[in-house]
Amino acid sequence: MGPHPAVAAIRLAVRRVLHDVLTDLTDLTDHPGSPPAPRTAGGSLPLVLVACSGGADSMALASALAFEAPKLGIRAGGITVDHGLQPGSDLRAAEVVSRMTALRLDPVESVAVRVGRDGGPEAAARDARYGALDEAADRLGAAAVLLGHTRDDQAETVLLGLARGSGIRSLSGMPEVSGGSAGRTNRYRRPFLQVDRQTARKACMVQSLPVWDDPHNIDPAYTRSRLRHEGLPALEKALGKGVVEALARTAQLSRDDADALDAWAAEAETGVRDADGRLECAKLYALPPAVRRRVLRRAVVAAGSPAGSLFARHIEEVDRLITGWRGQGAINLPGRVEAQRQGGRLVIRQG
Amino acid sequence: MGPHPAVAAIRLAVRRVLHDVLTDLTDLTDHPGSPPAPRTAGGSLPLVLVACSGGADSMALASALAFEAPKLGIRAGGITVDHGLQPGSDLRAAEVVSRMTALRLDPVESVAVRVGRDGGPEAAARDARYGALDEAADRLGAAAVLLGHTRDDQAETVLLGLARGSGIRSLSGMPEVSGGSAGRTNRYRRPFLQVDRQTARKACMVQSLPVWDDPHNIDPAYTRSRLRHEGLPALEKALGKGVVEALARTAQLSRDDADALDAWAAEAETGVRDADGRLECAKLYALPPAVRRRVLRRAVVAAGSPAGSLFARHIEEVDRLITGWRGQGAINLPGRVEAQRQGGRLVIRQG
Repeated sequence: MGPHPAVAAIRLAVRRVLHDVLTDLTDLTDHPGSPPAPRTAGGSLPLVLVACSGGADSMALASALAFEAPKLGIRAGGITVDHGLQPGSDLRAAEVVSRMTALRLDPVESVAVRVGRDGGPEAAARDARYGALDEAADRLGAAAVLLGHTRDDQAETVLLGLARGSGIRSLSGMPEVSGGSAGRTNRYRRPFLQVDRQTARKACMVQSLPVWDDPHNIDPAYTRSRLRHEGLPALEKALGKGVVEALARTAQLSRDDADALDAWAAEAETGVRDADGRLECAKLYALPPAVRRRVLRRAVVAAGSPAGSLFARHIEEVDRLITGWRGQGAINLPGRVEAQRQGGRLVIRQG
Repeated sequence: MGPHPAVAAIRLAVRRVLHDVLTDLTDLTDHPGSPPAPRTAGGSLPLVLVACSGGADSMALASALAFEAPKLGIRAGGITVDHGLQPGSDLRAAEVVSRMTALRLDPVESVAVRVGRDGGPEAAARDARYGALDEAADRLGAAAVLLGHTRDDQAETVLLGLARGSGIRSLSGMPEVSGGSAGRTNRYRRPFLQVDRQTARKACMVQSLPVWDDPHNIDPAYTRSRLRHEGLPALEKALGKGVVEALARTAQLSRDDADALDAWAAEAETGVRDADGRLECAKLYALPPAVRRRVLRRAVVAAGSPAGSLFARHIEEVDRLITGWRGQGAINLPGRVEAQRQGGRLVIRQG
């Protein structure tokens, strides 16, 4: 008799990602004439870490990594981050360390961070967490760090992006693979983006793994928590049970669409500049609106406007210098950037 | 003292659209050397109709049309559709006719339709309604038909599209301008897509216009009604009051993005065919995934697969013949269409 279906599902998801990690390592170290060598620079077995909060999702992930890694010649380790936001968080981190050790992960570490205030409590905690994970992965020479985000997390992320109303890039959720500290483009992997939260929970139960529920997850002060416990269930009631899957699929399709349009805009940008590198309004006018707005956004960011403060309505206003020209004055944009039309050219510069 | 802000808002929205209608008519009839002549073929004043259910949105629209049209040399008329779905619907239609007449719309008509069953109750009612509006507009020689959909309707439509999970085209909601019967690309206009439902309701109240609440709008058996009364309010509670506006903006951005990518795919398609017109897998592979999937979708639809039955997962399976080739057999698609890979070519045909 094989493992419980939930356990089989989480293991399969992790196995696929570990294969990808090995393929990437082989691509990096493979030289013509030498056999594939999926080993790290020092010659030891490659190390893959799991970021584990002790919650069901990341405990399920840790258990699957512990099971699959040795079969593929990979060392499996674990990191838990102590955010220091509740009294006794250090004791809990120590408990998570002992649970990961019980799964035979090695090395296993608890890393304490200090959470700042920039961008609100959720963003500040996230920044501190990724900083600590980057540092640990660099120090331990890890080939990858696995994150336990599930399909349900992805659906919530898409809805959070939808609420910003800033276009399809913000609908594209979390990527399966993403970068970390300088130069790394594929450090973080999310094996569970196609696995639902219920499966992860079930896998912990049937493996008798103790799990810890993060009190933030049920604190209605957090937007994501309100979405999880009220918004998304109401949406499922209105639209049917397939909503989570539909949102996750929307994320993937939107990401591919946004990538393609960004590539188009990057290429189009060179074609709409005159010999002096200034943007020509007539050529911008001829572009499809979706491409033109992306070219404008690129130009405004290049002039020094912080991407995070630049909203769709800013770009729409700049766009009206092209599509609705009636002698408007200079437009003020975040980061003291100004856009104005002068003699058929668009001039965008920092004041 | 000017009109109430709600009345000013609905009138402004209608005035803008009537200007667009006149511009389109002028473009059609303008000849070099002759002055602009915004008149219909017969030489009479152009006619604009409002589709009016007697609900607050379309009554507000009817009142604004009646006020603005004469000032622009436009005749304003109204149509109400009797769907025959409730006992006494004919009496109600007669009442809506008399309310439109009281607004001095002329001509005013009630058109009875028979609602079929294709595609479910909402789709069948919609098909019957647009069929009747098309017929009436053709018969009366109307230059445009105004529809009362508000920003709230748009937000609901985006969420309904999101629940399908079939990509950004289904997130693009209702267009401001759309076609009707053969050859017309701009018959229907939605002046209120940026106006919220509350404003329309308020405008009726302050103008003492009687309104009728469609029982379907509060019937929880209808998906849209559940979304309106439960799903969207819960989402607003979790994410904040800006959700409706964000969804409406997402619609516009998604529509432009989808249009640009469709144009790219149409152009790319010619480049990926060999001398015999067959799709070359190597060339398809080189396209960005978002463009490749659209090219594949076009090819499958061209081979006879009904667009409405073709889901993202079908196209993903065809895509794996290109990106994940391991000797798969033929793939069965809706409309008895088969896709298979043969000697580096993708063969898509109806069986």
